[in-house]
Amino acid sequence: MLIVKKFGGSSVANKERIFNVARRCIEDYKAGHDVVVVLSAMGDTTDNLIEMAHDINPDAKKRELDMLLTTGEQVSVSLMAMAMQALDVPAVSLNAFQVMMHSTSRYGNARFKRVDTERIQHELDSRKIVIVTGFQGVNKYDDITTLGRGGSDTTAVALASVLHADKCEIYTDVEGVYTADPRVVKNARKLDVITYDEMLELASLGAKVLHNRSVEMAKKYNVELVVRSSLTEAEGTVVKEAAKMEKLLVTGVAADANTARISVIGVEDKPGTAFVIFNTLAKNNINVDIILQSVGREGTKDISFTVASDDLDRALEILNENKERLTIQEITCNKNVAKLSVVGAGMMSNPGVAAKMFESLYNSRVNINMISTSEIRITVLVDEKDIEKAMNAVHDGFIMTE
Amino acid sequence: MLIVKKFGGSSVANKERIFNVARRCIEDYKAGHDVVVVLSAMGDTTDNLIEMAHDINPDAKKRELDMLLTTGEQVSVSLMAMAMQALDVPAVSLNAFQVMMHSTSRYGNARFKRVDTERIQHELDSRKIVIVTGFQGVNKYDDITTLGRGGSDTTAVALASVLHADKCEIYTDVEGVYTADPRVVKNARKLDVITYDEMLELASLGAKVLHNRSVEMAKKYNVELVVRSSLTEAEGTVVKEAAKMEKLLVTGVAADANTARISVIGVEDKPGTAFVIFNTLAKNNINVDIILQSVGREGTKDISFTVASDDLDRALEILNENKERLTIQEITCNKNVAKLSVVGAGMMSNPGVAAKMFESLYNSRVNINMISTSEIRITVLVDEKDIEKAMNAVHDGFIMTE
Repeated sequence: MLIVKKFGGSSVANKERIFNVARRCIEDYKAGHDVVVVLSAMGDTTDNLIEMAHDINPDAKKRELDMLLTTGEQVSVSLMAMAMQALDVPAVSLNAFQVMMHSTSRYGNARFKRVDTERIQHELDSRKIVIVTGFQGVNKYDDITTLGRGGSDTTAVALASVLHADKCEIYTDVEGVYTADPRVVKNARKLDVITYDEMLELASLGAKVLHNRSVEMAKKYNVELVVRSSLTEAEGTVVKEAAKMEKLLVTGVAADANTARISVIGVEDKPGTAFVIFNTLAKNNINVDIILQSVGREGTKDISFTVASDDLDRALEILNENKERLTIQEITCNKNVAKLSVVGAGMMSNPGVAAKMFESLYNSRVNINMISTSEIRITVLVDEKDIEKAMNAVHDGFIMTE
Repeated sequence: MLIVKKFGGSSVANKERIFNVARRCIEDYKAGHDVVVVLSAMGDTTDNLIEMAHDINPDAKKRELDMLLTTGEQVSVSLMAMAMQALDVPAVSLNAFQVMMHSTSRYGNARFKRVDTERIQHELDSRKIVIVTGFQGVNKYDDITTLGRGGSDTTAVALASVLHADKCEIYTDVEGVYTADPRVVKNARKLDVITYDEMLELASLGAKVLHNRSVEMAKKYNVELVVRSSLTEAEGTVVKEAAKMEKLLVTGVAADANTARISVIGVEDKPGTAFVIFNTLAKNNINVDIILQSVGREGTKDISFTVASDDLDRALEILNENKERLTIQEITCNKNVAKLSVVGAGMMSNPGVAAKMFESLYNSRVNINMISTSEIRITVLVDEKDIEKAMNAVHDGFIMTE
């Protein structure tokens, strides 16, 4: 069996943890499996390097930042190889140049184009554990790139895909994917299995276990993922294609407080006004989420929508600059809102889910500001102060009564 | 003009020094020159990385150590590029993979085989300052190697050679090459010019300004070096071929306390005994330096020689193990000795140098234990306690009276 195992920065933050990871990998190796390990930079290394860079040049070019940051993973992988060698197991560390992990050119946010397997396969054939730097690629100029957030997960999935791995294990500090954040919802429980689509909806809604890009890639290349803890032996959660699994009505509940509502009031009620507004925002790289349009007074309409909290100031600025052209009479906003979502492949064939969600929220006196739905997700915007109460109410309404 | 400039770890140890180096390079750039910069790892980085490695595995494989250590230079070069960009000068950092600095396979002590120029030339053509990681290469397995001590100097010389640079400046914390160590000999003065051979003799005798391998390479490819300070604007010392320069009788005086004397007494006086003794030591990687042979009692001879202090215990062990086979009756040793050498291309045609040296030592009551000479060097072994007095006496005898 060929197993790809990915460990994050906190799992290799010091000597003890490095040896802990080494031992877990060696278990599989000694059971006769081929083992490929993907590592992030140790602990706070990446943050410290970013701080050094900002101290020298706050506007450092991303090309040089990537050159700097990728040293972090190279330190992790070489130390891990030394640890395994200290435990008498042959191991070799490889960086993105040595594997040849070809990426797009975009520094700081590159994507894999193709990944060579020759070197890794050669090392596996000579019965070595192969330890690969996560998060990094090489572009067509032979320059080093990084993959952006969650990059090491993506590296693991890419390698599992091209190597036709039997398993791709993503180790983290939680035991798997939960029906809701266990720190907020006390009845939250671990899922044994979840579909790619459900995982994507949960990830984009603030469940920080796996990054979207790695799940998208796993779905595209049908790589079965296992999310599990690096601290315990618990089984973890399998992420795979829907066809193979029993369906739950609702798989999970997620909250995202990183959201703000903007309302533009008194917009001229003629075709294309909404398009012009959202096009103006999109051109400035501001993503708009839930949209609600209502009829206003005297041939005008009001449009409300949500943006990420970080984008709020910039969005307001752009709207104000273009106020006249966009025929906006007034702009209001609210930062103290949060999104609450239920996700589940089961709700596609079950029209009562929305009603049940609204009932749960009504019963706990939580006011709903806006609503948005997809085939496997229902999202409502609530006041930020109500989010904990709302999560517990909706979670218990669905998951406990099933 | 194309200028290669090399700065050591202390020259880039912090933000202020990084900007200091950046400004010095930018001066040349703004004068219209092409500038290639070679950097070592910042300050104590390499030592800290070695410590981390030893903590995890005291017998870490050199292949993994090289993978680890080379991150140090990658950090320096990317931060330097950011600093130059902060000063509005286009710059790009390159590691050994990106330049393609092909080396032999030997980890920890590799040598350059050939160095590609395409990438550097391309960046210079687009008027960027090019900043290259010193100390590192890539071997035929696509693995990262390091060049051993003084490796960054060698990188600078190799680049100057393949790029046909007009100048190769080695920046250090002293103002150039001195006639003797200025901390010991108060009358020591800076040389304007010195030959490769003189520099080689001085370097191997303990003048720590340039490492031998870089001088050998500079001589082989006729790269003119300038040794100068990164802290002052002083002119420095030019290292070049003898033909081009006026000859001093003696160029410098060097001392080396890292030496120990071994005497083997009562060795059978027949052909080949000396060969067998030194062959046994050589097979165990022990370098023997000055050798003195004298007739002993009753058909035997005594042989004295020096080794590096670090090798003394091991050399004694080997001699004792083979005492019978080597027909040695007795072994004695002395750690408290030091080598004192005068170096100068001028002494080839000047037979009085040795006599003058001995006179200076006699006048200051320094006893000579052993003597060894080459075409441009005379070395004597003296008691360690006399070395300072001896250096001053010999230095002033030659250099002050010329």
